[in-house]
Amino acid sequence: MNLKIAVLSGDGIGPEVILQAKKALYAISVAYNHEFIFEDALIGATAIEKTRNPLPEQTLNLCLNTDAVLFGAIGNPKYDNNPEAKIRPEQGLLKLRKELGLYANIRPIKPFKNLLDASPIKKEVIENVDFVIFRELTGGSYYGEKIISEDGTFASDICEYSENEINRITHQAFKAAQGRRKKLTLVDKANVLETSRLWRKIVKKIALQYPDVKLECQYIDNVAMQIITDPKQYDVILTENLFGDILSDEACAIMGSIGLMASASVGNSKALFEPIHGSYPQAKGKNIANPIASILSAAMLLEHFGLEKEAKKVYEAVEKAIEYKVVTIDLNPGSRFGTNDVGDFISNVI
Amino acid sequence: MNLKIAVLSGDGIGPEVILQAKKALYAISVAYNHEFIFEDALIGATAIEKTRNPLPEQTLNLCLNTDAVLFGAIGNPKYDNNPEAKIRPEQGLLKLRKELGLYANIRPIKPFKNLLDASPIKKEVIENVDFVIFRELTGGSYYGEKIISEDGTFASDICEYSENEINRITHQAFKAAQGRRKKLTLVDKANVLETSRLWRKIVKKIALQYPDVKLECQYIDNVAMQIITDPKQYDVILTENLFGDILSDEACAIMGSIGLMASASVGNSKALFEPIHGSYPQAKGKNIANPIASILSAAMLLEHFGLEKEAKKVYEAVEKAIEYKVVTIDLNPGSRFGTNDVGDFISNVI
Ligand SMILES: CC(C)[C@H](C(=O)O)[C@@H](O)C(=O)O
Ligand SMILES: CC(C)[C@H](C(=O)O)[C@@H](O)C(=O)O
Repeated sequence: MNLKIAVLSGDGIGPEVILQAKKALYAISVAYNHEFIFEDALIGATAIEKTRNPLPEQTLNLCLNTDAVLFGAIGNPKYDNNPEAKIRPEQGLLKLRKELGLYANIRPIKPFKNLLDASPIKKEVIENVDFVIFRELTGGSYYGEKIISEDGTFASDICEYSENEINRITHQAFKAAQGRRKKLTLVDKANVLETSRLWRKIVKKIALQYPDVKLECQYIDNVAMQIITDPKQYDVILTENLFGDILSDEACAIMGSIGLMASASVGNSKALFEPIHGSYPQAKGKNIANPIASILSAAMLLEHFGLEKEAKKVYEAVEKAIEYKVVTIDLNPGSRFGTNDVGDFISNVI
Repeated sequence: MNLKIAVLSGDGIGPEVILQAKKALYAISVAYNHEFIFEDALIGATAIEKTRNPLPEQTLNLCLNTDAVLFGAIGNPKYDNNPEAKIRPEQGLLKLRKELGLYANIRPIKPFKNLLDASPIKKEVIENVDFVIFRELTGGSYYGEKIISEDGTFASDICEYSENEINRITHQAFKAAQGRRKKLTLVDKANVLETSRLWRKIVKKIALQYPDVKLECQYIDNVAMQIITDPKQYDVILTENLFGDILSDEACAIMGSIGLMASASVGNSKALFEPIHGSYPQAKGKNIANPIASILSAAMLLEHFGLEKEAKKVYEAVEKAIEYKVVTIDLNPGSRFGTNDVGDFISNVI
């Protein structure tokens, strides 16, 4: 297969970890006789520095004309500490999601057998946990109108959803549930929010078309607790943008490290793959960042294009690295292996 | 001391657990020579059934004319399953919070020594955890305008905050931090939301008046993870309404059971005390609900009125019940003790 992949490494540790994902993809292309062409482009704080634009025209065009995007990380403390900055790195990612129509962010939560002890949660609670979060990614309060009053004493954010926006991701989530344990949990705050009531109404209606899938509705506050106390109950979780942001980071506690969590953001025609972790500026250039999340994002990319065997190969190589403790310090405090070593080990195993 | 206390038991298990809190308060009044006068009133689904109003005029008037409110639980599946119901039990609680000006919801998270094993999280992670969440309670998307389009295909919720709303709870939170370990963590999503940026700006300004308190700002998605992976880092957490709702339920995972979590909602003149758990309709009338959260809410009431000794007495009686395993089945699956037994034991110890 020929694939043209846009590589947006972004800020902080982004470039280091994405390099390891590229190595893994390269190893796959050799082993299975595919051709992957990588093309780099700027995004985030790095792009602001060079072009004053967090998503330069050129980057967007590249993404629109490639098969997939491999994304690193975004964010810089300079902007976090300055709430009034008008140009912000995150705008690049948010605009990219919108322009590529990436309305479904998919995050699988399935702890590694050899890493059950790495989680702060007890082994018996997380053993055999296997669920996937479908987070709506191009709506909600991320994109609604934002107001700050002239005198700076009042602010507002609008969260809005339309039937269409809810429809498309809901169908995706139900289809995923059909291929899994056939349970879908809608997470909302329907006892307070109007948008949540709209979600609940529409999802219940769509559920009639998937009679083999059991639908459950739970409140976000309750789920924030249950995802820790009883995570085995979940199969597919469906939720709006901000709730999904919160829950999928929370679910990292199950995996043992945020450095293990990959995600796919897909739309009707485009797809982007990225680790869940942020730009982790304190670790930049130190060769200590965990590249596994990026490498697993590359595996999700392969899967997305139907390359199941290849994706499995990457996944198994990652398991081997974990088994042999060729991991970074977040997973083994005394480890002598750096970002590069882990990446090399995995691509060698492939 | 003379205290007039409005008792709003509400729905589901509310009446059963509140009865135990009243017993505890009664025992305190006898032991320490206080006079507590209880007056009952309707709220929630129970009130809708009888008066078609989730917060009858009479209830509101009673609350406005008493020293404190003891609150049970609210909610009924009948309404949860009907997103289009115009009159909803939760409206009663939300209106009460607003009318009484209860802008600060305070939830302490400090697991019991004898219950460290009840949590799904490892002992070494939660041992010595001791933090308190200050959740803004009368603003944000709970009270902003809600829209549903005529044709029912579009909905929106507005989240809004003014400087005044942020000021008052921020000062309370900083003062609390001064009496504790002198650290305050503001939780927001300032990389996306305008209201969060307003919070950050104002809280940073106010921090200058409390130079002995260390301020940290963290994103909600990150905190949702860290509260599980590294909860010891927190002392006082300050956040807006919906984020506080999510985080404080999540923090129940640390305590081992939501049946142990109490809260105080305070304003400039009024105060309300309630367990965090909901109405738990499946348990209603079965004498299995854990009354400890309600009893600890009564302890917070005593503390609020400066009755430190008395509050401590209640707390110690609860510890004793836990030590002697006089607890409900959520804490000890084989337990033969019911709601009433636990309440009796605790008030007898007092
Ligand atoms: C960087 C930030 C804007 C982003 C989000 O909130 O969507 C991140 O947390 C994520 O989950 O991808
Ligand atoms: C019942 C509901 C409206 C309420 C809230 O969201 O505030 C509850 O979850 C709480 O935390 O007290």
